[in-house]
Amino acid sequence: MKISIHSGKTIEAKAGATIYESLKANGIFLVSPCGAKGTCGKCTVKVLSGDVDVKSYAKIGQKERSEGLVLSCQARADSDLQIEIPEHSRLVLGGKIAVSIFKDTAGYLKSYDTGIDPLTKRVSLSLPPPSINDNIGDLERLRRCLEEFGIVNVHFSYEFVSTIMDKLREGDFNAVLSYAKTSGNAFEGISLIPSGRCAGQYGLTVDIGTTTVVVYLVSLTTGDVIDIGSTYNSQTKFGDDVITRIVHATEGGGLSDLRDAVVGDINTIVDFFREKHNIDTCGIEAASISGNTTMSHIFWGLNPASIREDPYIPAVNIYPIWHASDARLNINPQAPVYTAPSVASYVGGDIVSGILASKMHRSTGISLFMDIGTNAEVAIGNDEWIMTAACSAGPCFEGGGIKFGMRATPGAIESIAIDPVTLKPSISVIGGEEPAGICGSGMIDAIVELWKTGIINQKGVFNPAKTPLVREGEDGLEFLIYSGGNRDIVLTTVDMENLIRAKAAIFAGVSLLLREAGLSLDVLDKVYVAGGFGNSLNVEKAVMLGMIPDLPKDKYVFLGNTSIIGAYLSLMSDALRMELESIASKMTYIELSVVGDYMDEYMSAMFIPHTDMSKFPSVSTALGL
Amino acid sequence: MKISIHSGKTIEAKAGATIYESLKANGIFLVSPCGAKGTCGKCTVKVLSGDVDVKSYAKIGQKERSEGLVLSCQARADSDLQIEIPEHSRLVLGGKIAVSIFKDTAGYLKSYDTGIDPLTKRVSLSLPPPSINDNIGDLERLRRCLEEFGIVNVHFSYEFVSTIMDKLREGDFNAVLSYAKTSGNAFEGISLIPSGRCAGQYGLTVDIGTTTVVVYLVSLTTGDVIDIGSTYNSQTKFGDDVITRIVHATEGGGLSDLRDAVVGDINTIVDFFREKHNIDTCGIEAASISGNTTMSHIFWGLNPASIREDPYIPAVNIYPIWHASDARLNINPQAPVYTAPSVASYVGGDIVSGILASKMHRSTGISLFMDIGTNAEVAIGNDEWIMTAACSAGPCFEGGGIKFGMRATPGAIESIAIDPVTLKPSISVIGGEEPAGICGSGMIDAIVELWKTGIINQKGVFNPAKTPLVREGEDGLEFLIYSGGNRDIVLTTVDMENLIRAKAAIFAGVSLLLREAGLSLDVLDKVYVAGGFGNSLNVEKAVMLGMIPDLPKDKYVFLGNTSIIGAYLSLMSDALRMELESIASKMTYIELSVVGDYMDEYMSAMFIPHTDMSKFPSVSTALGL
Repeated sequence: MKISIHSGKTIEAKAGATIYESLKANGIFLVSPCGAKGTCGKCTVKVLSGDVDVKSYAKIGQKERSEGLVLSCQARADSDLQIEIPEHSRLVLGGKIAVSIFKDTAGYLKSYDTGIDPLTKRVSLSLPPPSINDNIGDLERLRRCLEEFGIVNVHFSYEFVSTIMDKLREGDFNAVLSYAKTSGNAFEGISLIPSGRCAGQYGLTVDIGTTTVVVYLVSLTTGDVIDIGSTYNSQTKFGDDVITRIVHATEGGGLSDLRDAVVGDINTIVDFFREKHNIDTCGIEAASISGNTTMSHIFWGLNPASIREDPYIPAVNIYPIWHASDARLNINPQAPVYTAPSVASYVGGDIVSGILASKMHRSTGISLFMDIGTNAEVAIGNDEWIMTAACSAGPCFEGGGIKFGMRATPGAIESIAIDPVTLKPSISVIGGEEPAGICGSGMIDAIVELWKTGIINQKGVFNPAKTPLVREGEDGLEFLIYSGGNRDIVLTTVDMENLIRAKAAIFAGVSLLLREAGLSLDVLDKVYVAGGFGNSLNVEKAVMLGMIPDLPKDKYVFLGNTSIIGAYLSLMSDALRMELESIASKMTYIELSVVGDYMDEYMSAMFIPHTDMSKFPSVSTALGL
Repeated sequence: MKISIHSGKTIEAKAGATIYESLKANGIFLVSPCGAKGTCGKCTVKVLSGDVDVKSYAKIGQKERSEGLVLSCQARADSDLQIEIPEHSRLVLGGKIAVSIFKDTAGYLKSYDTGIDPLTKRVSLSLPPPSINDNIGDLERLRRCLEEFGIVNVHFSYEFVSTIMDKLREGDFNAVLSYAKTSGNAFEGISLIPSGRCAGQYGLTVDIGTTTVVVYLVSLTTGDVIDIGSTYNSQTKFGDDVITRIVHATEGGGLSDLRDAVVGDINTIVDFFREKHNIDTCGIEAASISGNTTMSHIFWGLNPASIREDPYIPAVNIYPIWHASDARLNINPQAPVYTAPSVASYVGGDIVSGILASKMHRSTGISLFMDIGTNAEVAIGNDEWIMTAACSAGPCFEGGGIKFGMRATPGAIESIAIDPVTLKPSISVIGGEEPAGICGSGMIDAIVELWKTGIINQKGVFNPAKTPLVREGEDGLEFLIYSGGNRDIVLTTVDMENLIRAKAAIFAGVSLLLREAGLSLDVLDKVYVAGGFGNSLNVEKAVMLGMIPDLPKDKYVFLGNTSIIGAYLSLMSDALRMELESIASKMTYIELSVVGDYMDEYMSAMFIPHTDMSKFPSVSTALGL
């Protein structure tokens, strides 16, 4: 039997195998924190045609059942099937590091000149076996040997010591010690591995995004990224943005639901890594986590309530190093888990990581850093000072709040051109497939093209007289971008409003930081753009929209996911971890909502590109204004 | 209805109450780690007469049932009862500190001039509430305030931080922090208590003896001992001495049984303390444990196998400070648990504690320290050096291996005189009750009296011609000490052999240490005697037996249980904890079994008092030899 997947691929279904198993056998991985036991309800697929034998629907409601939704781990094909895999069910293994400067991550680490000095280190020990004349205890024997390596002031946990006797004797007093630096010049024993039982040493770096979770499996010895996995953050079912998540955590009492969701996502990826690369749980000996303040709080199960209450204080900005067992990660329970420090409630570890990845904190010239993801954060500074702010941009560039919005994955319209004469749009779709929605770069293209052709005005309001493609839809006027296939894809009036609000919030944030620093745009040496856009952001278009400063294209550097690169760097080097902490302590947070001028800046930016065209000279020139 | 207890007391039984409850209501506490749920099988009593309604016998076998044994928590009186409470079922609460110099423990602590600086300290904090201009995170706010008190380098565990947000706000940012010193100059947060919810601060000190477990409840603020509890070490059912326990732990796979037994004993006492003094679990914030090397290993669940295997190496001598949750103690899970350091496999933390309690390590004069308990350990030294050894004396002075041996508790014959003419013994019994057995001091009296009257010879062999009280018993010749009541109490030939072996081992150990140090007896300034004997040891008799050196009586100082005093001192003062560690590191362990001369010394001591009478001049004089 065959299973055809909506995106185009057709695979063979083994007799008796569940859909989950058949997909997995063909390299298509679904999220399943429960291990395909039918209890977590996450590995759903939609059966479009064909007969399935469903063992259990579990949590799937009547409505969804009638639409063909099944748990892939509980359903078997009884005939050839056509199925659709919802994006949130997909686990992407073996993903790519999108942006070229990070492609050789181990090489990028070398460019910092700090060497490889990972969070968890190893040392091979050969102890003299005890004798009647050398009868100190096992732990003291271990300490004495470590002193010869200059490793002193080591704390050994109860769990560590409780197995020391057997482990030392198993390897005839030859063993490998894994140990981690904690605070100050103190260390902690992580595990003792008898000689001959020692395998590779791995670490994890995790970017916990509000929308997506990305995990790298890293060799702690070489710094090589062994594998990459990513998935939707399962918390999205509780809300798209951090505020609705916090509300769910606090008012809904759902903190543990949210925590379980994201930890389950990470563990699903980790379990796949371990299986694929044949790694023992204990072989993953360190983890480094980066995320915004809310995501980091929820990951650790810390109450995020005060983050959204005046005066907006997180429980923690600078996280102690805790253990994998505390984090409930499926790796060595003693493994240290480092969390990138936050600056404030709305400038988190992901941004501090981004600064480290950009190296702007090492430069004498002044740089602007922008991370445009589910929210947008900006920072300006150099090797002496950094100012930062969070812009309430919302998640629309990642697809949130936009009727046909989606992430930049196969099926997304990533660029749009509108013929100035016919006013008909032509599109390009990621993967060349039937389009399913519009991603951020497509939206920016669309709004700029619509404006340039006069289909919308400077405020984003549709002119229905211009073309019949502007039509009355469910939510007022809308523009038809694509018709054909299963459904029409449109941009609505509400979409326009959301996009303009978002771009205005970003630009106002940048303007205000510059103003607070007493600087003008032309002092900027570099503009680093991080976030899902990656290389796909068209600078001219984004400038024309008035989202980013009107600067020469060569000043822009696109970095992609810098949160995970920061996590990677702090996993691989104690010195870079210190550097990360030092960046965080150096960053001055500006709370935009209490700066009087912010609302003025925001209102001025609510036009395409801006009320003050002198700020966008290249746009004026290009349009011959 | 009434319940008459064999020892004499009669109590009222409430209608419907279990025997356990009736006893408890009358201040008679039984061991019940399961909380009187009928599952642990420890609160047994023997019903001598009367009718009982037995709900469940649980683990009690047929033979014991037929002898009247019931679980007191599962049995109700249906009529007036006569019962006997086995010694191992009893929990002694509100016990006394036997020896006068330790009676005022807080005063004794003061005599060290180190002040009160307990393992867990408290500091009252009043933090400025967060504002938009002071928007650091809660944890950073706490750290900033601690810095003002000079408390820096504090590790906060995951458990601590996970509740910080709610606790700070509950007390309007006024709170009490409990924190502990860890290694070096580092600290650890134990708990944060919102202002207004803060009650007294308590600690535990525990002496884990091979035979008995003693627990003090201590005020960490004043150093006062609030209550004392003691019980038999429930491990005794697996064997009387450390060797049989190790065998059970390793060959029998019974390490967790042994661990559960002793931790259950401690927790039973702790639960009673908490109930009696109305203390919240979290209010007990520190514990300090002292025991021999094997007991400390088993308490922590550490494999003791190598302790009894050549070359006799423990897993740990110097224990890191771990948590109450690791120890499974029913106190604040974050509470630090300190373990007195050991010197070697057979000189444990109890002896190091004893040295600290004796203060001999602070004296320029040379002292001898002897701890005679289930085993005997000796140490010689001063403020510059200390040598120590373990003597294979066995548990006979605590009752082990002696037919009618028992501890010095009510019913024990504690002194014996034999009329030189009639050769009839007269006895004195602790509590003035019907005698149930003989305790250590009674045994020493008996053997010396038997020798002085010629009923035994120098080797301890009975002369049946001397008196009809020497008679043929089950195990050969025996001497009738008491006849009447339920049974005859005798001392057997085997008892004699065991007692002489034990006293010879002790004296040989002392002789050898002196010889190794190149010293003679007369250099000794003081002899400190620790252990169950307390003040009840008759020095003249013990000298006459040849168990302890023939020195003037005023050089002897009886200290009683110094193990728990050492634990107490190290709980109450960081400086004394350091002093304890320094004593341990200063102690040189002599393994008697590998010193060639030891066997000679031992054989010479197998006579009463000794083959070399010149070593016992006072005995020669007293007997007119």
